[in-house]
Amino acid sequence: MSTPHPRLSMNQGTIKHSTLDEALGAVAGGGYESIGLWREPVHDVGLAEAARRLTASGLRFSTLCRGGFFTMGEGPARRAQLDDNRRAIEETATLASAGAPGSAAVYVLVAGGLPEGSRDLIGARSRVQDALAELAPEAEAAGVTMAIEPLHPMFASDRCVVTTLKQALDLAEPFDPSVVGVTVDTFHIWWDPEVLPQIARAGASGRIATYQVCDWKTPLPANVLNSRHYPGDGVIDFATLTRAVEAAGYAGDVEVEIFNDDVFATPFDEVVARTAETFGAAVAPHLAATPAPAPARA
Amino acid sequence: MSTPHPRLSMNQGTIKHSTLDEALGAVAGGGYESIGLWREPVHDVGLAEAARRLTASGLRFSTLCRGGFFTMGEGPARRAQLDDNRRAIEETATLASAGAPGSAAVYVLVAGGLPEGSRDLIGARSRVQDALAELAPEAEAAGVTMAIEPLHPMFASDRCVVTTLKQALDLAEPFDPSVVGVTVDTFHIWWDPEVLPQIARAGASGRIATYQVCDWKTPLPANVLNSRHYPGDGVIDFATLTRAVEAAGYAGDVEVEIFNDDVFATPFDEVVARTAETFGAAVAPHLAATPAPAPARA
Repeated sequence: MSTPHPRLSMNQGTIKHSTLDEALGAVAGGGYESIGLWREPVHDVGLAEAARRLTASGLRFSTLCRGGFFTMGEGPARRAQLDDNRRAIEETATLASAGAPGSAAVYVLVAGGLPEGSRDLIGARSRVQDALAELAPEAEAAGVTMAIEPLHPMFASDRCVVTTLKQALDLAEPFDPSVVGVTVDTFHIWWDPEVLPQIARAGASGRIATYQVCDWKTPLPANVLNSRHYPGDGVIDFATLTRAVEAAGYAGDVEVEIFNDDVFATPFDEVVARTAETFGAAVAPHLAATPAPAPARA
Repeated sequence: MSTPHPRLSMNQGTIKHSTLDEALGAVAGGGYESIGLWREPVHDVGLAEAARRLTASGLRFSTLCRGGFFTMGEGPARRAQLDDNRRAIEETATLASAGAPGSAAVYVLVAGGLPEGSRDLIGARSRVQDALAELAPEAEAAGVTMAIEPLHPMFASDRCVVTTLKQALDLAEPFDPSVVGVTVDTFHIWWDPEVLPQIARAGASGRIATYQVCDWKTPLPANVLNSRHYPGDGVIDFATLTRAVEAAGYAGDVEVEIFNDDVFATPFDEVVARTAETFGAAVAPHLAATPAPAPARA
């Protein structure tokens, strides 16, 4: 087994059924330097304990997944959701401090779909903008970057009304780039005719908060949510997209986030090894030859 | 049963398993004034005979579906596909002449996906542009408008590398709008943050060659190709989109094109009636109150 690329980060969503300890163990044991965590396994042990275990692992922390889901109208449900996002901002700050040097205080946001019974995409999007405005001062105070993730348009109704990188950047525009950035995930945006100029725009405005990779392949499985594949197993042009992200100035960790029922059913250490191998073949050759990542945040 | 809206056209894809006679009979019998035909049932009886039967039905002809699929590189397969498109242009001209006054000589084009083994979206798109350039003089000579249809991005790899209305309009731009226009299909573009300005742009340049409606709903079925629904059964905002298309100056027939296994298994006359009913409730109220459609082509 070759050494994983130094900028490769395992997003815990790829080893979905892992506890925090299992994830840290498998990823550090696999020779990775970085990990992106999901909130639920952190909550299972408590934030302070999670931070200690992350520090003990020696891994960098690349993102916390995930929050958002704030397209509903004003009311108790919206208040509860915004409060949950506030907690996630604090979790992100704590975990970024606990990770090894070079950790990024990045919190991934998925906007949310159309509220039940609604057809008002424009209204839903404006409530995303409102939520960002409400959370931005708190993210700034915590030193956290909120990374808006455009999802593939097949999720536009039930998961994320933000469907293009351009739209995510438009939503981010009113805020300082250290506070509101974007998630560039190949699976969600590879099809977009505007993807290259929008990656360049994201880089020019300093808003690429995280770069995530996995592949697209058809036919899609019955549950399209879990239709992601190892880099190189599908049709995404990682050479062009990765070079564009590099040319745009992104120098942080690169996460592999694969939702796939077969991958979920595979032992964690096998997934960790296969991820490093496919990343090494399909993505790493297109990364700038930096010895170690620059910190995404000072 | 109320009278179907005078601008409603049944796309034969909705009654997929119908012969030409069955389709003409069910649609005319259901009180419609217009139909969009698929090529295979026309071929089954031969073009001249199909034209006679269309004339006898008294229906207008709104589109011929469909052609395109020309993303492959140069070679015999590409030549054969371009020749097939040439035949479709002639079929469209013949059927438009055979339909009742107000028929449209519109031929719907789906670009095609990535060629087997290719990851080169940009190259595939440039070969679509090349194919349009090759076919345009022949379409012009035949008096036929080729209507580029952007498909939902979930089909970008295996069916259509053209995924947004903006992209379709960019491809159409070099050509006269009477020769290359676009298909505005709600199912494919409802999610697009740019959809309203791009509809306005399409109208301003006279390129809305056909307007097609059906609805989007999740969860998607195992075969996402057949995930379309009757207007009003899902989340698409037909009021906003239809008013935008009207405001952009489109005055032609409006097709309902639903691919759905349950609809395919329903008797044709029931589908015809339910389509008229749902169109009447969800779409028709947002159409301009014109007594009869203006011909899309002189």
